[in-house]
Amino acid sequence: MTEKIKEEMLQFINEGISDNISWMEDNHPADIAEVLSELKPENMLEIISLLDNQEIAQVIEHLDQELQKEIITSKEIDEIIDIFSYMSKDNITDILGNLSVDLREKLLNQMKHGEAQILRNLLGYEIDSAGGIMTTEYILLKETLTKKEALEKIKEIGPRTEVIDIIYINNDKKELVGTVDLRDILSAPDDTILAELMDENLIYVTPEMDQEKVAYLVAKYDLTAIPVINKNKVMLGIITVDDVIDVIEEENTEDMLRMAGVHEEESIDSPLKKSVIRRLPWLFINLFTAFLVSMTVSLFEEVIQQVVVLAVMMPIVAMMGGNAGNQTLSVVIRGIALGELTLNKESWKLIIKQIVLGLINGAVLGLFTGIVLYFVYGNPYLGLIIFLAMTVNILIAGLFGFLIPLGLKVLGVDPAMASAIFLTTATDIFGFFVFLWLAKVFINYLV
Amino acid sequence: MTEKIKEEMLQFINEGISDNISWMEDNHPADIAEVLSELKPENMLEIISLLDNQEIAQVIEHLDQELQKEIITSKEIDEIIDIFSYMSKDNITDILGNLSVDLREKLLNQMKHGEAQILRNLLGYEIDSAGGIMTTEYILLKETLTKKEALEKIKEIGPRTEVIDIIYINNDKKELVGTVDLRDILSAPDDTILAELMDENLIYVTPEMDQEKVAYLVAKYDLTAIPVINKNKVMLGIITVDDVIDVIEEENTEDMLRMAGVHEEESIDSPLKKSVIRRLPWLFINLFTAFLVSMTVSLFEEVIQQVVVLAVMMPIVAMMGGNAGNQTLSVVIRGIALGELTLNKESWKLIIKQIVLGLINGAVLGLFTGIVLYFVYGNPYLGLIIFLAMTVNILIAGLFGFLIPLGLKVLGVDPAMASAIFLTTATDIFGFFVFLWLAKVFINYLV
Repeated sequence: MTEKIKEEMLQFINEGISDNISWMEDNHPADIAEVLSELKPENMLEIISLLDNQEIAQVIEHLDQELQKEIITSKEIDEIIDIFSYMSKDNITDILGNLSVDLREKLLNQMKHGEAQILRNLLGYEIDSAGGIMTTEYILLKETLTKKEALEKIKEIGPRTEVIDIIYINNDKKELVGTVDLRDILSAPDDTILAELMDENLIYVTPEMDQEKVAYLVAKYDLTAIPVINKNKVMLGIITVDDVIDVIEEENTEDMLRMAGVHEEESIDSPLKKSVIRRLPWLFINLFTAFLVSMTVSLFEEVIQQVVVLAVMMPIVAMMGGNAGNQTLSVVIRGIALGELTLNKESWKLIIKQIVLGLINGAVLGLFTGIVLYFVYGNPYLGLIIFLAMTVNILIAGLFGFLIPLGLKVLGVDPAMASAIFLTTATDIFGFFVFLWLAKVFINYLV
Repeated sequence: MTEKIKEEMLQFINEGISDNISWMEDNHPADIAEVLSELKPENMLEIISLLDNQEIAQVIEHLDQELQKEIITSKEIDEIIDIFSYMSKDNITDILGNLSVDLREKLLNQMKHGEAQILRNLLGYEIDSAGGIMTTEYILLKETLTKKEALEKIKEIGPRTEVIDIIYINNDKKELVGTVDLRDILSAPDDTILAELMDENLIYVTPEMDQEKVAYLVAKYDLTAIPVINKNKVMLGIITVDDVIDVIEEENTEDMLRMAGVHEEESIDSPLKKSVIRRLPWLFINLFTAFLVSMTVSLFEEVIQQVVVLAVMMPIVAMMGGNAGNQTLSVVIRGIALGELTLNKESWKLIIKQIVLGLINGAVLGLFTGIVLYFVYGNPYLGLIIFLAMTVNILIAGLFGFLIPLGLKVLGVDPAMASAIFLTTATDIFGFFVFLWLAKVFINYLV
């Protein structure tokens, strides 16, 4: 679908054919945005210049920050303000937050006072807090309104809101007290007052709440929007489900990348220079841990000198520990992210499970490996020490896979943060130590 | 919040205090469900027996499959059918799909013919396809209706639908031709016909489409629901955004677990036996790959015998390759999942980037390590070979981190499937081979 749009746009750019340009009518703004972001910047701006301000507003929402900035800075102040007039406040805030302070102030000073005030407030919240992702286009009505009055208001405000199926209700003190489903308003008699239709079981958030928690609540309660209220229960905004989906994808990306020691903003098309600068620090931390592992091995240089086949077997111990630990690590990090795993009085049961699981898997794999190596090298003690070492190492790997993310969480650090690197270090150090120490103990039977 | 519910429920169970039991009125069904799933099965059923069928319907949606089955099988056929009458078709289908064929048939045969027919159709779709997650509670109106007629219908059908803000429109041939926003209906004059208000840019899916693609479209176009149509453009159902969020979380869990070689259905509270059975096969595959790595090292037993410090340095090569590769792997798997990375004519640019990135990071880390080891062991050739080996290994690691998931994708396999295990194998084999082969070449300078 986007292929066709791209072809038409390129034809226009290269050959200047401009009849029948009806991209915006025939396509979804998200598709137009997708194609625009594949064009060269100057071509993109050329296409943008063909669109009117309302169309630009629809497309710009779907572009990434860099392109948004490029388009906005190519326009005059009053054009920008006109484009903003077709956009929701959360999207305007995102754009303003990326502009130079100079330009941002110029824009805010040119806007209507009330609008500017709302945007200044929104700009004040952390970008990954509820306040940072909320918007102000919602319907809030007084509980004393009748159905008929409410419907009039809804007809009037509706077109400017993001959500219409849920109407928020406040009382005389301006406190948010409940919600009414538009369905119930539609089917109620004309003189019903809203308070009678109201559901008082409110699920809400405060503006400081982390966006991850907001997403968790929206997912748990199957909401299409969640209200944000302040300490006095005054409604400040709503967070809509489409933004929550973005948060979920963002948090999942963050988890997966951080686990591997990658900066959460790296993506497949990050520029080379950024990738180098962002990855090297983690790799240096990793190098330091590798030195620790290497030092552990160096304690047993003499043993390896005497029985060089130990060096051949070392990778088996390391790989099995690393991978068994990684299995547990992934399950635990995911469990934390989905809110299934929290520390409480029952947590010891899960630790016991990890220990037994590690013992069983370690013993099974160790026994198999021990027998294979016995047949290959003809030395039963070699088989015995790899059996013991693998059992202990896989047991320890499971424990670390469980404890590292939980430990990070208790320290207030993201449980995914470089946890794979810490895990490998732990399993390598313990694995090699146990394996080589056992070899040292049994050295007379191995030589 | 759920703490209080739990306390009250336990008090009821233990002491039989039954006045003021108003859990359902005071709490969200999702919270009731959360507490129920923490109770012992017999206690859960005791609480369930206090709820009426409509309340059970609200709670059961939020429970997991096992508990749903337990509750349903504890009820009589006509009670179950009454509970179902308060539920949406997609949720009923999920429950029916988990019951024994016997019970399922009994239930379907007792239902109204039309209802049973819809459910039989829904049961026919793959559970991870669009058909498998769609529901049939939506509003579909003819394009020739006037605003007034439409509003009458909406009042009537509305309370039974999942989505009300978007009205689907079909023509005389029963083809889905567009959507109308309820806002536009509310604010239009009484005699406007729906066709005039209709948006013809339809985003839709077919029932066979994979749920991951459905989620991608809903996220891309910021939808609250997406229609499902058949080949004749007849509307079959809708998929709502709350189900899409579940799909996104499910697919993300799958990616993270599969990457580490864990069965996608394992969670933190899986029973021990299942964890053992599901993890062991992958660990055995991993053991096989570990043997391959070990065999690679064994080719150079003599070299290690002569220069035992090589065994001490081996873990550094392996760890750095594994982790550098893992960084790229995570970025690539996430890029594929988010639809940012597809194979096309431009893909070679990304490969070049990986090569340069690997060369730079490898050279920087290798140089540093080489210098450190030169000072520790006083042998410049030892420093030289670790510098060369690490540069090559980190370069190769980046390439494999890029190519393994893409290769799996081309083969039609989930790109995340055990990719970390394949990656470690590749980086270990290449890393050790290059390192030890270089040592063999320079052996005269090392002894």
